Amino acid sequence: HLQLKKYVIAPYDRRYRLWQTALVALVVYSAWVSPFELAFKKASTGPLMIVDLIVDAFFGTDIVLTFFVAYLDKATYLLVDDHKKIASRYLTKIWFPMDVASTLPFQTIYIVFTGKRNRGQFFGFLNLLRLWRLRRVSQLFTRLEKDTRISYFWTRTLKLICVTLFAVHSAGCFYFWLAAHHKTPTNTWIGSQVPNFKEESIWLGYTYSMYWSIVTLTTVGYGDLHAVNTGEKVFNMLYMLFNIGLTAYLIGNMTNLIVHAAVRTFAMRDAINEILRYASKNRLPEGLKEQMLAHMQLKFKTAELQQEEVLQDLPKAIRTGIAQHLFRSTVENAYLFKDVSVDLLVQMVAEMKAEYFPPKVEIILQNEFPTDFYIIVSGAVDVLTYKNGMEQILTKLGSSEMIGEIGVIFNIPQPFTMRTKRLSQVVRISHHRFKQMLQPHSLDGKKIISNFIQNL
Amino acid sequence: HLQLKKYVIAPYDRRYRLWQTALVALVVYSAWVSPFELAFKKASTGPLMIVDLIVDAFFGTDIVLTFFVAYLDKATYLLVDDHKKIASRYLTKIWFPMDVASTLPFQTIYIVFTGKRNRGQFFGFLNLLRLWRLRRVSQLFTRLEKDTRISYFWTRTLKLICVTLFAVHSAGCFYFWLAAHHKTPTNTWIGSQVPNFKEESIWLGYTYSMYWSIVTLTTVGYGDLHAVNTGEKVFNMLYMLFNIGLTAYLIGNMTNLIVHAAVRTFAMRDAINEILRYASKNRLPEGLKEQMLAHMQLKFKTAELQQEEVLQDLPKAIRTGIAQHLFRSTVENAYLFKDVSVDLLVQMVAEMKAEYFPPKVEIILQNEFPTDFYIIVSGAVDVLTYKNGMEQILTKLGSSEMIGEIGVIFNIPQPFTMRTKRLSQVVRISHHRFKQMLQPHSLDGKKIISNFIQNL
Amino acid sequence: HLQLKKYVIAPYDRRYRLWQTALVALVVYSAWVSPFELAFKKASTGPLMIVDLIVDAFFGTDIVLTFFVAYLDKATYLLVDDHKKIASRYLTKIWFPMDVASTLPFQTIYIVFTGKRNRGQFFGFLNLLRLWRLRRVSQLFTRLEKDTRISYFWTRTLKLICVTLFAVHSAGCFYFWLAAHHKTPTNTWIGSQVPNFKEESIWLGYTYSMYWSIVTLTTVGYGDLHAVNTGEKVFNMLYMLFNIGLTAYLIGNMTNLIVHAAVRTFAMRDAINEILRYASKNRLPEGLKEQMLAHMQLKFKTAELQQEEVLQDLPKAIRTGIAQHLFRSTVENAYLFKDVSVDLLVQMVAEMKAEYFPPKVEIILQNEFPTDFYIIVSGAVDVLTYKNGMEQILTKLGSSEMIGEIGVIFNIPQPFTMRTKRLSQVVRISHHRFKQMLQPHSLDGKKIISNFIQNL
Amino acid sequence: HLQLKKYVIAPYDRRYRLWQTALVALVVYSAWVSPFELAFKKASTGPLMIVDLIVDAFFGTDIVLTFFVAYLDKATYLLVDDHKKIASRYLTKIWFPMDVASTLPFQTIYIVFTGKRNRGQFFGFLNLLRLWRLRRVSQLFTRLEKDTRISYFWTRTLKLICVTLFAVHSAGCFYFWLAAHHKTPTNTWIGSQVPNFKEESIWLGYTYSMYWSIVTLTTVGYGDLHAVNTGEKVFNMLYMLFNIGLTAYLIGNMTNLIVHAAVRTFAMRDAINEILRYASKNRLPEGLKEQMLAHMQLKFKTAELQQEEVLQDLPKAIRTGIAQHLFRSTVENAYLFKDVSVDLLVQMVAEMKAEYFPPKVEIILQNEFPTDFYIIVSGAVDVLTYKNGMEQILTKLGSSEMIGEIGVIFNIPQPFTMRTKRLSQVVRISHHRFKQMLQPHSLDGKKIISNFIQNL
Repeated sequence: HLQLKKYVIAPYDRRYRLWQTALVALVVYSAWVSPFELAFKKASTGPLMIVDLIVDAFFGTDIVLTFFVAYLDKATYLLVDDHKKIASRYLTKIWFPMDVASTLPFQTIYIVFTGKRNRGQFFGFLNLLRLWRLRRVSQLFTRLEKDTRISYFWTRTLKLICVTLFAVHSAGCFYFWLAAHHKTPTNTWIGSQVPNFKEESIWLGYTYSMYWSIVTLTTVGYGDLHAVNTGEKVFNMLYMLFNIGLTAYLIGNMTNLIVHAAVRTFAMRDAINEILRYASKNRLPEGLKEQMLAHMQLKFKTAELQQEEVLQDLPKAIRTGIAQHLFRSTVENAYLFKDVSVDLLVQMVAEMKAEYFPPKVEIILQNEFPTDFYIIVSGAVDVLTYKNGMEQILTKLGSSEMIGEIGVIFNIPQPFTMRTKRLSQVVRISHHRFKQMLQPHSLDGKKIISNFIQNL
Repeated sequence: HLQLKKYVIAPYDRRYRLWQTALVALVVYSAWVSPFELAFKKASTGPLMIVDLIVDAFFGTDIVLTFFVAYLDKATYLLVDDHKKIASRYLTKIWFPMDVASTLPFQTIYIVFTGKRNRGQFFGFLNLLRLWRLRRVSQLFTRLEKDTRISYFWTRTLKLICVTLFAVHSAGCFYFWLAAHHKTPTNTWIGSQVPNFKEESIWLGYTYSMYWSIVTLTTVGYGDLHAVNTGEKVFNMLYMLFNIGLTAYLIGNMTNLIVHAAVRTFAMRDAINEILRYASKNRLPEGLKEQMLAHMQLKFKTAELQQEEVLQDLPKAIRTGIAQHLFRSTVENAYLFKDVSVDLLVQMVAEMKAEYFPPKVEIILQNEFPTDFYIIVSGAVDVLTYKNGMEQILTKLGSSEMIGEIGVIFNIPQPFTMRTKRLSQVVRISHHRFKQMLQPHSLDGKKIISNFIQNL
Repeated sequence: HLQLKKYVIAPYDRRYRLWQTALVALVVYSAWVSPFELAFKKASTGPLMIVDLIVDAFFGTDIVLTFFVAYLDKATYLLVDDHKKIASRYLTKIWFPMDVASTLPFQTIYIVFTGKRNRGQFFGFLNLLRLWRLRRVSQLFTRLEKDTRISYFWTRTLKLICVTLFAVHSAGCFYFWLAAHHKTPTNTWIGSQVPNFKEESIWLGYTYSMYWSIVTLTTVGYGDLHAVNTGEKVFNMLYMLFNIGLTAYLIGNMTNLIVHAAVRTFAMRDAINEILRYASKNRLPEGLKEQMLAHMQLKFKTAELQQEEVLQDLPKAIRTGIAQHLFRSTVENAYLFKDVSVDLLVQMVAEMKAEYFPPKVEIILQNEFPTDFYIIVSGAVDVLTYKNGMEQILTKLGSSEMIGEIGVIFNIPQPFTMRTKRLSQVVRISHHRFKQMLQPHSLDGKKIISNFIQNL
Repeated sequence: HLQLKKYVIAPYDRRYRLWQTALVALVVYSAWVSPFELAFKKASTGPLMIVDLIVDAFFGTDIVLTFFVAYLDKATYLLVDDHKKIASRYLTKIWFPMDVASTLPFQTIYIVFTGKRNRGQFFGFLNLLRLWRLRRVSQLFTRLEKDTRISYFWTRTLKLICVTLFAVHSAGCFYFWLAAHHKTPTNTWIGSQVPNFKEESIWLGYTYSMYWSIVTLTTVGYGDLHAVNTGEKVFNMLYMLFNIGLTAYLIGNMTNLIVHAAVRTFAMRDAINEILRYASKNRLPEGLKEQMLAHMQLKFKTAELQQEEVLQDLPKAIRTGIAQHLFRSTVENAYLFKDVSVDLLVQMVAEMKAEYFPPKVEIILQNEFPTDFYIIVSGAVDVLTYKNGMEQILTKLGSSEMIGEIGVIFNIPQPFTMRTKRLSQVVRISHHRFKQMLQPHSLDGKKIISNFIQNL
């Protein structure tokens, strides 16, 4: 973390982040209250007015604060903490005038200066400028969607719910406004049902508005409340057309999330089904079929343990580091590499490939051509031989013990079958690569041969 | 299967599984009856009350039983059958109190203890605790979705139907409850249509409730039944908002299933279309075009017979086992490998690759560079030569006979064309790999040469 | 085509296929008329009755015909033309009794035998057995979906339209039946609007039924027609629940088709966007950027000409056949291979890879390491050299002329740059492979060298 | 650009394109006015009539113009500018008669010739021929969708909006026409609400029509306006069935766009999640985990800088050109290649692979087997060694400096660890390839060795 100038805050400062998140909560309030105050004028002069002023104060503070927050230059990827640059960047963009316009409490200023209560619609619409603050919510969601610690599904769902609720609320409030400002109250959608709706409580008006709004959005359309005059019809049409898009957007997003969530399940089911079909068409014996199934199921269960697929995109140095961390001690303890130089050890570990085997699976088959040898990392392996067609268990091997090195060193077909007793992890290195690596290390080669002979 | 302590049941015990499945049926009943009894108080005191008690008894038994069922430790993957551990695990989780609370027949206990019939709503809501049992259904579906023997499509569809029906039923019952407890019955959604609805039969009330519920869920919204008072409007809104999510979820799931089911059809159609377009753009002769088509169609028809794709993810030992099972006897019977050592045979079979050829397709072309030789596993192959531009059929080969070995051994261009007579499976080994494998088996090499010379 | 027994028809016989297709048209009529006659009893005794009898006669003929149609045995893939086997296969399955039951004109038989007109509902429901014939439509669609000559999109769309129309029609007819058989006609969905609906024309009744049915299916739900009595409510509920599934199915299928259709467009747009972004981020000069773009656009335009991707799944013999057809004459005419043996030619053509180059693209750059040489199949190529930093066009090459062979044979950096003048196809063979192939053909090698020297 | 004949315009001429785009705007007007004039006869005789005539004149001009526009022959990909061929192509297709029929102002001609105002419906329907012009809009969208400079999402969305609005407008107008021509005006959908609707303003009629149309399309179906007579019911049904398709099409398209847009986000999230899960399951130390994360995040952020994936589809000559442009100067400035011949430089640059490394990542580990050496293109790299288990920074390398060449040339394990200080780009060439390339350039080889020794 860099040292910034005095009185300059880093944008990723913990307290500043907290402040920003707190502001988002106030934005949610603003988003709700702006259309609400437009529709229900009574409400806008009551206690809500004081809350509004407090909220405006918070956002005013944030405008001032912005002059003290460093920013990241997109071209150089450096943090700029020069006061002049910060100020000029903020002032020359559309943000600054919009921030100010969405923060000034015009109505209060008017009352203070003129001493009169304004009765027109002007300030109600001016208050809608406060919806400019919504860009903060959109920024928050963009950030949350990139944060892998938070479930994408729920972030996305929450976003969709917010969008839907805001649409429903705004449409409902504006629809009520239309009715409240029509010249003949009984010739309106609500007045034809509740003639004296203007005298009724805000709660009743709000319920009717939201009920109509949701009935329309969900396309239920009972018809108990419907547009009566032309103005209402026009607004209703626009709202319905907007709703087609919103509904398609909701369904599209939901489908996207479901399809993505199902990818892994389908991959597993398809792989297993394919194996079952292959086994049954080729009439493979039950034993083989079960080994195949066990392997596939293990593969999907231990997906996060599998090396190859996860690591292939990483650069070699990181892969090497991981291999050293995971397998170095195992390889060091293998009898064949006792007293071998660190250089060779490091090299060998970097080249090794890790594999998991489910229980009761053959790692090496007797008489197989030797291509690799293995060191057991965890688990246990039985060494078997066949005498007169009967299996004979010779010994059991555990962690750090080696498999198949006899075949590799003598270059003869594997003398034993090796079968896992339980879930085992082994590292593997190819005969060819091993010989290649040994070439420049003649001393180590001798030590390995002597280790091998001592162990025979 | 391990030996468990006395009086401890394994969780995968057949009878225990059956018992669990039987309980799921009772859960379905509970899910239906809990909202129903809340809405229709008359029903809850009739014969349903006795059925409820019996069902509660079953779930009570299950609580007791749980103390005798071993569980699988997530960390060690071992079955724990220690009574104390089982009990402490059950008692320290949220499950136990919830299971008990959802099983106790509070209403009956109250009547027994106080001798009075309770008339309030308290016990109706308390009964909703029984919905806790629904987690068993959710567990069942999670298990079914992972079971590859059962169609994923139908599991998923059944789940969606269950969710939909439960939502519809619950919403309908609650909506009726709202009407039944409103102070002016005629000022309710049902009372405005059927003023004396409280005296009418349960059947009529239930039909109206469900009708409204489904009309709303499907967004048909005829409008013959609609919210009248504010409370109903609020509930209706919540239900409609919930329905947006449910509908999007249903459509998303259906789309997911359809898209997945179509993948194979599209793959086949696209592959064939591409070949047809390629053939027509390059004006390939009809004969070639038909061979190409036949091959692609066969490929998709015999997808489950194709080795390579299915087997590539399996470990080498399993792949070797399959190859031994499928091709060992074929290779043993090939004239070239008569009296050859078992070691070499096993090795060769492990390296061989299987392929299917549709009828009338050339496996080898005359004068082609020899890279592989083939042994016929099933089917029949014609050996052809061209004299003066005319095809001449020399002989017909069948199972266990070899193709292309002359070119490979003399390292000359293939002297004959080999063309399948019908669908044929062959195994193939590359010249290069074959020579490599033969190196350490000098005796077998001689035997193969002598076999080859004898057969010329 | 095999020779079948006398009086036995092959299932793929042209005339039999035509007959089957004609029957499908009659099935469509049956599907429409069965629910219609149930709902509108008046109609079922008029001219429709005669049409029904004729249609039944057709299906009766088909039952007889089935005894003379060979079938494909699923196990052996052979055509069975044995009369006994055909008969026993047909008679032992569910098909035969169902076919007969769906063909017998029960009502006519009853009238003929008893001389009385039946007035009950029994025969109306019995007629619904004729819907068994719908399986033919389902079979037809299954066949059409696999036929690559017919657009999958339209097949699928037609199927969805058919399913939708049948659902709408059936529901509408049954809804009318419910009203027509209610004890108080004015207490029905239609009777509350048109009290004397039973005396009105069939046309009016059918319009009302279909209108209600479609208004419900599409979830428009105006509410002008709605369920009045309990029976109607129950049926309406079932229909609406069914419609959720149908709608989800329709949307899912449409989404599937659209997603699939867009795959290619997206692939092209993404590839081009990536290249543009790469070029602009790395500030590549305009010339290079245009070459990159031209190449990508050509790639997608000539997708069906591209070899590699289409051919990779085909067996080697077919690939060889295609290469011989497309490139043999070009290679034969190349000066380097004059008088070369046919063996070598065939081998070389089989190994060659074809590529397209857009206009003004360099195939070979001066001073490049020689890895391949090329023969022009079509198009034209300029040979350039750079003198004092200026391009000089030396010559222009056309079909069957070679590029880069000098560098390959002398194993020196390419002396010239080769740039396409217009869209050109070339075949390419690697230096390494070429030398390998030449080894056993020492005579041809000499001829090639002499050809080369003569041409210098 | 080719030279065309006199008085012949190229189809891609800028001014002609502009003219075509201007015509599309007029098409939009035609699409709106044709159904409107049919429904509201009053409107068609007012000022709209003059606008119509002007629009017709424009399209008439375009017909004449078409005879002077060259066309692209699909077979030869050449521009045809022969007047006769252009004319015969236009006249022999369906386009010409349809263009003429959709341009002639039949009504005006009739009035001019007969002097009577026509009162029938004939000309209203004849005007619908002008909808033929819509094919221009469809062509425009096809072109826009292929244009990668324009966002596919918005093109597609705009198209869907246009289709929806046209459907809504046409249906509304036709529905009004139905009412206006019914024998009893009060027995119509609008007459039952507004008995004297024919005398009311066009604005009222249009609002009602559009309101009904949108309420039906969106399936809201309030029911305040609904079909009254049979004709209306039939049209309503057809419109609703059409709407199922349209809605499914809208949702399908939206889903498609959303799914496509999410692909990259999901890829990133999945890759990062996998790495986090792998690290936590294997309990990797925090340092390694952070390196892994940093690498993955960088990979997705700098996706457009990554070479391999973008370039792999391009032909070798273009790839070589890009490499020369990006890396030649860097390689030239590397000390090892001072005074080396241009031939070798060009070759080497062509073979080099570029890679990005995030800050604090090891490029080479001490004691690693040397397989490649690197040249730094940008960024900075620390050279480290370990003494007594402590890291020691030896030096810092910058642009054009080399990494790992000592290990490669002496063929010994890498003597130092190289770790990036900040985001660095390096080019890499393999030891093996380098030696191979050096072989024919013995002079350069000597120079390189001497450079190397001087620098030691």
